[in-house]
This record gives sequence, C-alpha cells and structure tokens, in this order.
Amino acid sequence: MGGCDTTEIIKKFGTPLYVLDENYIRNTCKEYISALGEYGNGLIAYAGKALLCKKMCKIVASEGLGLDVVSGGELATALQAGFDTSKIYFHGNNKSRQELEMAVKANVHAIVIDSFFEIDLLNDVCKKLGKKQAVLVRSNPGVEAHTHHYIQTAKVDSKFGFFVDDGTAEKAIATIAKSSFLNFLGLHCHIGSQIFEVTPFELAAKKMIDFAAKVKAKLGVTVSELNLGGGFGIEYIDEDRPLTPKEYIGLVAKQVKDYCKTKDMPQPKLIFEPGRSIVGPAGVTLYTVGAIKDIPNVRKYISVDGGMHENPRHALYQAQYKVALANRLDETCTEKITIAGKCCESGDMLARDVMLPPVKSGDNLVIFSTGAYNYSMASNYNRNLIPPIVLVNKGKAEYMIRPQTYDDIMNRDV
Amino acid sequence: MGGCDTTEIIKKFGTPLYVLDENYIRNTCKEYISALGEYGNGLIAYAGKALLCKKMCKIVASEGLGLDVVSGGELATALQAGFDTSKIYFHGNNKSRQELEMAVKANVHAIVIDSFFEIDLLNDVCKKLGKKQAVLVRSNPGVEAHTHHYIQTAKVDSKFGFFVDDGTAEKAIATIAKSSFLNFLGLHCHIGSQIFEVTPFELAAKKMIDFAAKVKAKLGVTVSELNLGGGFGIEYIDEDRPLTPKEYIGLVAKQVKDYCKTKDMPQPKLIFEPGRSIVGPAGVTLYTVGAIKDIPNVRKYISVDGGMHENPRHALYQAQYKVALANRLDETCTEKITIAGKCCESGDMLARDVMLPPVKSGDNLVIFSTGAYNYSMASNYNRNLIPPIVLVNKGKAEYMIRPQTYDDIMNRDV
Repeated sequence: MGGCDTTEIIKKFGTPLYVLDENYIRNTCKEYISALGEYGNGLIAYAGKALLCKKMCKIVASEGLGLDVVSGGELATALQAGFDTSKIYFHGNNKSRQELEMAVKANVHAIVIDSFFEIDLLNDVCKKLGKKQAVLVRSNPGVEAHTHHYIQTAKVDSKFGFFVDDGTAEKAIATIAKSSFLNFLGLHCHIGSQIFEVTPFELAAKKMIDFAAKVKAKLGVTVSELNLGGGFGIEYIDEDRPLTPKEYIGLVAKQVKDYCKTKDMPQPKLIFEPGRSIVGPAGVTLYTVGAIKDIPNVRKYISVDGGMHENPRHALYQAQYKVALANRLDETCTEKITIAGKCCESGDMLARDVMLPPVKSGDNLVIFSTGAYNYSMASNYNRNLIPPIVLVNKGKAEYMIRPQTYDDIMNRDV
Repeated sequence: MGGCDTTEIIKKFGTPLYVLDENYIRNTCKEYISALGEYGNGLIAYAGKALLCKKMCKIVASEGLGLDVVSGGELATALQAGFDTSKIYFHGNNKSRQELEMAVKANVHAIVIDSFFEIDLLNDVCKKLGKKQAVLVRSNPGVEAHTHHYIQTAKVDSKFGFFVDDGTAEKAIATIAKSSFLNFLGLHCHIGSQIFEVTPFELAAKKMIDFAAKVKAKLGVTVSELNLGGGFGIEYIDEDRPLTPKEYIGLVAKQVKDYCKTKDMPQPKLIFEPGRSIVGPAGVTLYTVGAIKDIPNVRKYISVDGGMHENPRHALYQAQYKVALANRLDETCTEKITIAGKCCESGDMLARDVMLPPVKSGDNLVIFSTGAYNYSMASNYNRNLIPPIVLVNKGKAEYMIRPQTYDDIMNRDV
C-alpha cells in the first residue's frame, strides 16, 4: 500500500491504525477533474464530511479541487490549512449565527441556503457586517437515490432544502432576490448516497435545469451555478459496482450541456461534491486479533483492538466491508467469522459472517474502504483512544492525524 | 433543576449543553447502597461506560461506590481522580496487554476475565510483573433480558464471557485455579440492558449460585464474589416503568441470601453495577431551535443546534426520548414534531413524532434522560464541537466537562 509493507507499518505505528493511500486520493481527484474537463466551466468540491483535517485540505487544494464544508469546525480547519476560500461552499440544514458570521467574514464562495429561517439570519448577519454574500439555494428535485434504487416523488421526507414542485424553492429565491445583502448565484441539490447509477443524477439535473428556466422566466433571476452534490457509490463488498468519475459526472455534464442547449439557456457553472468516493477506497484500518470465541453451531467471533468507537458504520447502518488477514493474504478463506470490537456493548461489531483463513490471536486484520466516515465519525466511547491516521505514499508513511493519549481524553475533565 | 433556572443556565453557558443534577446522582447512589444494605456483604460499582470523567469518579467515590471500568482510558481517569483501586473491577471482551499491565500495576481489585486468550495473556503479564492478580470469570448463565422480554437459552450469541451450560466456564475456572499468578475470586454475569423486571435477574442469580456450588464440588474452588452486573432500566418515555433500586436489587439480594442458605453455601460478596440508572435520568440536554420546516402531509421538522454527534442514540438504536420546550413548559402540546440535528446526514434525528407546543425558532428545547450514553458516545462528526457538561446542585452550576474549541478538534492534525 503506497509502496509500504503493511507488516512494517504495523511494526512502526502499532494497531489499531487508519492508513490512507495519498496516491489513490490524488488520482481520484485528477479523474474527477478530467471527467468534468470537457464541460469547461466546472468545479469539483471535495465533501469534507467524509474526512477532514488540515492535510486533507492541502491535498485536495493542490489537486485543484474546491471544498464543501458543513460546520464552523470544518471551515476553521480549511482556514488553518490556508484553503482558498473562493472555492469553499458552506452547507447545512441549521447553521448557527456564529457559523454564518465566520463564513461571511472568511469570504467563502457561497453559502448554500437551506431554510427561510436561514435567509433571514444570513441577511441579518450580512447587514451587521456590511457585506454582501453569494448564496446557492438547496433545492429538492424530488429524486431520492440510494445504491440500486431511486424514486421520483413530489414530496420527499427530508430535513434538507426547499421543494421545487410545491413552489417553496421559488419562494425562497424570490425572497433572496429582494435582499440587498444576498446575491443569488444558483441552485444546489443532493439526491442521496452510495449511488451506483447515472439515471437519478440525470433526472435531477434535468429537473434543476427546468426549474432554472422557470426561475429565469418568472423572477428574471439567472442560475449561474448548478451544484449537483455528491453521492457516488464505492465498493465496500464484491456486489458493489461503482462507476468511474467519467461515467458518473462525465455523462451527467454532457446531458446538462445538451439540455441547456435545447432550452436555449446559458450553460451554468457545474459543481459536483464527491467525498466518500475520493477518500473511502483510499483507506484501510489495521487491527490485531485478540480473543477468539467459537460458539459451536452459533457463531465464531474474533475480537480486535478497535471497535465501534473508531468505526461506527456497522452499528449505525449495518454496513458491510471486505476484510483480510494482512499477514496471511495468500491463504484460502475457509472460516465464517464475525468481527467484534472491544467496546463493552453487545452490538459492537465491525463485520458479520465474513470469510477468512483460520484466524489466530496475534494475526493482523485489515478492513478495506474505511477512508470515509470512520475517523470523521469516531468517538471516545468507553474512553477508548481514537486511532491515528498514517498517510502512505511512495514508500513513505507519516502521521496525518497524531495518536491520541489518555491525557487528551481527560483534558476537558474538570 | 438542581435549584437553577434553566433559562439562566442557557444565558450563562449557551446551547447545546448537557446538564447533570448532582443531587439526583448522589441520591440514586444512596438508594442503591441502602437497597443492598440488608444483605451485608456487598458493593455497588458504578458502570463508568455510561458517563465517566474525573468529577464523576469523585462523586461516586464519595458516596461509597466502587467502579466498573472497561478500558485503559477509563482506568486512567479513575487513577487521576484518585479512585480507591481496591474497589475497581476491570471488564472487557478484548483487553490489551497494555491495559492488563496498567490494571495489575494499579492493584485493581479484580480483572473480569472474558476469554481463554485473556487467561494466558494476564498470566503472562502477572508473571513478568511478579504479581498475583485477583480475577472474576465472566460467565454466561443463558439468560438474555431487554426491556420487557427475557429468554433462557443454553447458547447465547454473544462476544462476551464463557458459557455455563456447555462447560466452558468451568474449564476456564479450572485453568485459572492452576495458575500461580491468578487468584480466582468469583463470578460475573451481565444479562442485558434497560431491563424492567426482576425475574431475569433472579433466574440468572440462581443459575450462578448453582454453578458456584458445582464448581466448589468439582474443583474445590470457592466463589467468594458474585457480581450480577447491571442493566436496570430507566424512564425514557412514559411507557417505561422502571423499578426502584430496592425493587431491583433488594429483592435479588434477598433471593441470593435465601438460596445460598438452602444450598448450605456461604453467602458470597454480592456486587451490582448500575450505570445508566445512576446518571441517565440525572441529565438533560438543552438546545436552541433554529430552522423549522413544515412539509404539509409529510412531517414537521425542527432543527436544533445539536445532533447525532452529541447524541447518537436515536441513529444507533432508534431510541426515543421525552422532550419539552424549556421556555414554555406550561403550554399545551398540540403539534407532532420531528427533531433534527445539524449534521449533514438525513438520518441525523434526535426524536421522531413527539408532541410539543407550537415551536418557534429561538425556543429552547430540552431532551430528558440524556445523562448516560450521550457525552460518553459523542463524536466530532462534521467537526461539530462536543458540548460541555454543567453540573448543577443547590443553585450552583459549574462545568464538569469544559467546552471544546476548534483548536481542540485540530490539535492532532499534522
């Protein structure tokens, strides 16, 4: 991995350990940029919620990507990393006054407005700061997609955004257009996550362009940016068949171009926000196997030195992963195994019924595709330490997130 | 709450905020101790995984409780707080060598052994340190209990402990008895969580005493401690009907006493490990309402300034809570509301379909019974800050956990 031997990495850094392949991240960034290249006027913004730290900001910045942040903490990280704020989009269904102030002061490119409450709040913030802020409007096109399913519906049960079909999105834009402190830039939508098809993206894009045309005609307002969000699926298990960036967004971008032409509309700046697909498959987590428990006719458990505190995705979403023994990659998988974490909770599992070679205590287990939504969701549950992240590239392995200590855990205890 | 006005607390400390009532915690500790009082030879050990920090250690210590820890981080916290280690039990299905070394060096009262792997590991640790360590054996009596259901079974699908019925627990004790570095003290079991009945505890206790008698007869080994774990239910919603400490453990303790008499066995030291029931109902979380979204014929959402990063229990377990508007407690609840968090994830909800008075942005929402498994499970997901904890008592409100800053979140970023 990244020119480094896994066994050597474990010797040097110990387990549990998150490892990220820098080259995979950079190559995927390049693929996304290239896929959007033919469109001309576009931007790939990395969705920081998948995994954000100063080094990640620097990597995606150096590849020419923008950034999608969803909190003051993510924005603070980007600012400390020196990220070009003219490429930052600020999302969220309930940004606080402090977060909006911070974003306006930092001159972020656009705040993605999510509610009427936020229109008023941001207007007030800008008024007090004497600044004008560009905004997108999070619009819900009535397309919901997840993995192999998508539906079209007039009403989506979602905490996010304004609905297009019932006129609320139009009402939001009309309200924004009247403000002297807000500058309407365009539309944003996000239709789901871990999606393996192009069709729902195409449906959403067409719906958004139809809406843009309507807004232009009725309100005289131009949609100069169209941000179609993220949700591109990755391979967690063999059954997952992700498309390439070219297949996902190259095709959608072409559709947008063609459809704008048929509608005689100027082509908007087109933004996509991949997160999981950039960093997810770049990461693995390395563990050492401890206790092994074979309950005849029930289940064979192996316990590792991590758990739901550092990877809550199985507990939260019944997520499945591919696994292997890092020190015995060539051996045949003959045993059905359930991988338990070390947290004092019966639901603390990392994977159920996966096939492995006969496992021994002391073996090193690797779980694949853990680069996204693992470190970013990690907790100190049971006062367990959150593992560090090591970035590997060209035979070098270096900390991207330093190890946590017991003192770190206690540093806010009075 | 604790003689403090909620509105004043919010003015002083802001939201989101965890608030804990010290008096409730202390009174519940006293009730537990009193409930076990008649038994004579017993100990209440607080289960730290519900919520542990230095101040919690000091509170339960001053009430005469012992402590159940499940990691090096929890033990480190107890040590820093000056907890009497002769009252500490160390649990866990996969303790590391470092954690076992730390526990042995700290002279914890007992390590609760969970696997054959751990017998060997602890034996080796003690040998190298030249110390003898007292241990309990986590035994699975084949009783599984949760809320209003319990089952008795010969095989439980669990990562924890040794089964009684198939002879593995006996084999574990025989192995320990042969070691010159391990001192077999007794048995531990834990049958479930959020339990509202006494019967499963009584069934488990009898099974354990029968097993103790068998072990004495077959191996000549005395069970001098019987630790029956925790799992006592609390009231999250109106339908929950928890028993009092006296009802839970007073009754079970009496049964143990009587049953030992009929078996002509000396009465073992009896330990219970309540966690949630001591600290859960003592806590509330205070929020400020931001965006409100009414989707006609679908759902009315209110978004608060917290979310699954500081309370993941709804996302993890579909947990339900009682809620109220702190600033309008007297008003009639006429609206069905779903409470969304601020995380960029559609599943980020705190409660679904709860009744509230007509909510306005700026109102203060309170979620009850959040003292356990909220702060302890909190993460920096979305790089949101983890709220501080304020301890209230006799009109005073003071930080027990200080506020987190953006610098704290970044302090391990390279």
